[in-house]
Amino acid sequence: MKVYLSGEIHTDWREQIIDGCKNKQLPVTFISANTDHESSDAAGDCLGEEANPFWRDHKSAKVNAIKIQNAIKSCDLAIIRFGDKYRQWNAAFDAGFCAALSKPYITLHDESLTHPLKEVDGSAQAWATTTEQVIQLIEYTLT
Amino acid sequence: MKVYLSGEIHTDWREQIIDGCKNKQLPVTFISANTDHESSDAAGDCLGEEANPFWRDHKSAKVNAIKIQNAIKSCDLAIIRFGDKYRQWNAAFDAGFCAALSKPYITLHDESLTHPLKEVDGSAQAWATTTEQVIQLIEYTLT
Amino acid sequence: MKVYLSGEIHTDWREQIIDGCKNKQLPVTFISANTDHESSDAAGDCLGEEANPFWRDHKSAKVNAIKIQNAIKSCDLAIIRFGDKYRQWNAAFDAGFCAALSKPYITLHDESLTHPLKEVDGSAQAWATTTEQVIQLIEYTLT
Amino acid sequence: MKVYLSGEIHTDWREQIIDGCKNKQLPVTFISANTDHESSDAAGDCLGEEANPFWRDHKSAKVNAIKIQNAIKSCDLAIIRFGDKYRQWNAAFDAGFCAALSKPYITLHDESLTHPLKEVDGSAQAWATTTEQVIQLIEYTLT
Amino acid sequence: MKVYLSGEIHTDWREQIIDGCKNKQLPVTFISANTDHESSDAAGDCLGEEANPFWRDHKSAKVNAIKIQNAIKSCDLAIIRFGDKYRQWNAAFDAGFCAALSKPYITLHDESLTHPLKEVDGSAQAWATTTEQVIQLIEYTLT
Amino acid sequence: MKVYLSGEIHTDWREQIIDGCKNKQLPVTFISANTDHESSDAAGDCLGEEANPFWRDHKSAKVNAIKIQNAIKSCDLAIIRFGDKYRQWNAAFDAGFCAALSKPYITLHDESLTHPLKEVDGSAQAWATTTEQVIQLIEYTLT
Amino acid sequence: MKVYLSGEIHTDWREQIIDGCKNKQLPVTFISANTDHESSDAAGDCLGEEANPFWRDHKSAKVNAIKIQNAIKSCDLAIIRFGDKYRQWNAAFDAGFCAALSKPYITLHDESLTHPLKEVDGSAQAWATTTEQVIQLIEYTLT
Amino acid sequence: MKVYLSGEIHTDWREQIIDGCKNKQLPVTFISANTDHESSDAAGDCLGEEANPFWRDHKSAKVNAIKIQNAIKSCDLAIIRFGDKYRQWNAAFDAGFCAALSKPYITLHDESLTHPLKEVDGSAQAWATTTEQVIQLIEYTLT
Repeated sequence: MKVYLSGEIHTDWREQIIDGCKNKQLPVTFISANTDHESSDAAGDCLGEEANPFWRDHKSAKVNAIKIQNAIKSCDLAIIRFGDKYRQWNAAFDAGFCAALSKPYITLHDESLTHPLKEVDGSAQAWATTTEQVIQLIEYTLT
Repeated sequence: MKVYLSGEIHTDWREQIIDGCKNKQLPVTFISANTDHESSDAAGDCLGEEANPFWRDHKSAKVNAIKIQNAIKSCDLAIIRFGDKYRQWNAAFDAGFCAALSKPYITLHDESLTHPLKEVDGSAQAWATTTEQVIQLIEYTLT
Repeated sequence: MKVYLSGEIHTDWREQIIDGCKNKQLPVTFISANTDHESSDAAGDCLGEEANPFWRDHKSAKVNAIKIQNAIKSCDLAIIRFGDKYRQWNAAFDAGFCAALSKPYITLHDESLTHPLKEVDGSAQAWATTTEQVIQLIEYTLT
Repeated sequence: MKVYLSGEIHTDWREQIIDGCKNKQLPVTFISANTDHESSDAAGDCLGEEANPFWRDHKSAKVNAIKIQNAIKSCDLAIIRFGDKYRQWNAAFDAGFCAALSKPYITLHDESLTHPLKEVDGSAQAWATTTEQVIQLIEYTLT
Repeated sequence: MKVYLSGEIHTDWREQIIDGCKNKQLPVTFISANTDHESSDAAGDCLGEEANPFWRDHKSAKVNAIKIQNAIKSCDLAIIRFGDKYRQWNAAFDAGFCAALSKPYITLHDESLTHPLKEVDGSAQAWATTTEQVIQLIEYTLT
Repeated sequence: MKVYLSGEIHTDWREQIIDGCKNKQLPVTFISANTDHESSDAAGDCLGEEANPFWRDHKSAKVNAIKIQNAIKSCDLAIIRFGDKYRQWNAAFDAGFCAALSKPYITLHDESLTHPLKEVDGSAQAWATTTEQVIQLIEYTLT
Repeated sequence: MKVYLSGEIHTDWREQIIDGCKNKQLPVTFISANTDHESSDAAGDCLGEEANPFWRDHKSAKVNAIKIQNAIKSCDLAIIRFGDKYRQWNAAFDAGFCAALSKPYITLHDESLTHPLKEVDGSAQAWATTTEQVIQLIEYTLT
Repeated sequence: MKVYLSGEIHTDWREQIIDGCKNKQLPVTFISANTDHESSDAAGDCLGEEANPFWRDHKSAKVNAIKIQNAIKSCDLAIIRFGDKYRQWNAAFDAGFCAALSKPYITLHDESLTHPLKEVDGSAQAWATTTEQVIQLIEYTLT
């Protein structure tokens, strides 16, 4: 099973899920976008400097999209994580992309976010609040 | 041309675009999700009360999705608006849905939001900051 | 809006919905499979008699499928009704067909059926128990 | 060849087919949804308890759908089994899902069910009454 | 309803169906490829003469395909007619094209052709032997 | 019939085809991208000035793509014109876009260009050298 | 590369192509429908006897279609062979199926058949008259 | 990762990218159309001589398209190279084909070509001017 991990990059939720699945010896491959904030923002810098920050962002976003959109198209399941900080519109964007392609996804976020995330949760296969739950769902799906 | 207007519901940007196109006598039909916050949150209430607010939201989100997803599938263009308040994850979700279906969309937001919206803007056909610009683009596309 | 009405043919739920929408002057077109049991079973009889009832059923099912599958592909919304008698596998089949094509559908059935219908309800946009609720949801979606 | 086995969970028809193919050393991989009734109904319980049985069912159905819909999308052939008990709407739902995606499927059921299953059989590639027949068809398809 | 009439051009089966539907005042639009043999073979001649008959045929076939493939993609139903003369590979080609796109089609041919046409009939929604039957099926589908 | 006219903007080939079809009273609707070079290059200027000409071009190209890609998706036939000047990569791009979506297209260019255009012609339904031929093909397709 | 070999079963053209590719050590996998006439006609017999030959053919055709349609969907190239005997409508059906899915195919037949096969050749990537040519094209495509 | 290299055949840009990725031990597979001009033009010659150069080109273009269109459909990323000579319409055609299928592509060309290539660049994920940049982007996408 190929699992795409999308969203928040400021906590170690990815490592928790990856390690949890490894401990249970589940046959899962994980893919993510670049999770290093600085190098992600700089993804397009090798193509030349930009005076205008909008175009710097634009170039980097499009370079990052190569990996992200291939990941969504080829995955069996996506986990979309929303943290309590930042706007994380890219995570909601990925969820919409999954929904349109009928790719199953699980959201991972606190109860405090359920109201603003209701559309994102509405097309999800499950809403989890802990990485342990996500690991259990992956394990369940594999057996 | 059928234009889907998605996102922020606290300012009159929809009316501005609709009126602007009417004034120019452009042959455009507009569709939106329910833009009344309270009745949108209550979309599923007729199906029975829910003790748990998550399920109330869930039911309403799925009822609203009937209109939203049909709107995206049938429109020629979407305008995705992000205001300066609230998380507006549903707008980013709609943008991702459009992107996956290769539906062209234009984002409408202030310059202050370009960095967090870079993935959403990266798949857009244009980024506008004023409704006047959106009207010009619609007019241009129609002639 | 084009609404496909699928399932139970022994009560007047279709008429209730159609009349209810007419009374509210909603711009809806309804389509159904042939709801007359006998003539539906005889749909293929004009092509020649069959000694074996399996083939009679087969021919009629395929003739009926012309209308049904075109209806699902062209509708904006399906209402899938399960009554308390008979197996109604054709209704569940239509629901699966809708789900695979991402066509939104609403199920209409009593609370007593929620457990055996959980997979069918799981992919639905809403579960209603009365035709009045369905009419309200159609009206809501149109405004 | 990847074969998805859908439907009835109260007899050993899956084992018969799997063993029969193994005995003939056919290169087939089989996939199924969770066939343990209790744990299938509890698939979503790890996400939190639900007071309302509808939502418990809903959560479990959606968790189970991750595996089921991936199975249908990736299989080469589905076997859809209807027993003589229970409503088995999920099996008919899977058949409709297959039909919409042009995935070939074989139904497996007694002659007594041919009339109510005529729509499901009408889109099938074959109707079998015994697991031995299914094994023969799989073997035939592989050679 | 839009009905595409494909195949044999040496008898008046098209007129029989069109007239029959007109007499019954059925709301059907019919489309056909060019049914005049000579002008069909000459479809590409305006683009310049060809010394090699293969290329003359090639050019005409591709010009004719513009209409044919648009017809199949936009129709609700195809009628595929096989007469007792000529090879009529284009009719079988159209049937395969329909099957791949899940477009419903009805075959129209004598009983003497059922064995060589078994693959073509196998994916059809019905096999008719008379134009009267086809008219009845169209009428049935419309009511 | 909806015909998309793509490519060269320095001669009056569009007018010739449109007038020719009008004279023959053919029921055709024509669509084109903006064919005024200057205003096409300026399509995105209303969104703000760009210091870097690459980004000015980029914005305008994406704004123009809204109309172009909707035109290709909705047309029944495209005419792709290559003149003897300029590189006209946008015309070849449109042809590739058509080919990938199985949209039929006719190329219109001189014999001197057949070698460099062989891949573009290879997926076309016809190659014409005069607008008169294109008009004849459109007329033929409509009758 | 996966190559699907479709059509005539009365000469050894399949063996010639398979052996020719083996001799050149080309990395090709070949798939065919059942090429044994009698056992192909009997493909559905294990499901029970049929008094009516139409239904015997129907059952067998649908069983054979499991393999054929999976083969077309998964192959990289199809070779469609027409011999000088029999009607071979199944070969033309396969060609139409390929064309609708944009699967590339090469036809293999004598010059005497080019006129009746013009539609089938019109959507092909190449027309060959000898198996040696087919082997050369496969080799060319692989290098 | 599978990367399709399309376009210019007169400089060693392909070798530079392939060698650069090999030196960095990146797990990439590269595919190209036939890059030998003469043998590419002769791809269809084994099928018989043509008096008319248009048909020689046509046959070769269609034979080459087998490999090219399979390459685009199966790749994860395309690099589309435009040199300073020749018209290279095939490269722009490939870009349009990628865009229609939502396959990500990177263009590789000098700054002098940005204006005529604006539509091709407008749908690209990135524009590079050196092979070193392309290698960096591939490396970035893989890590």
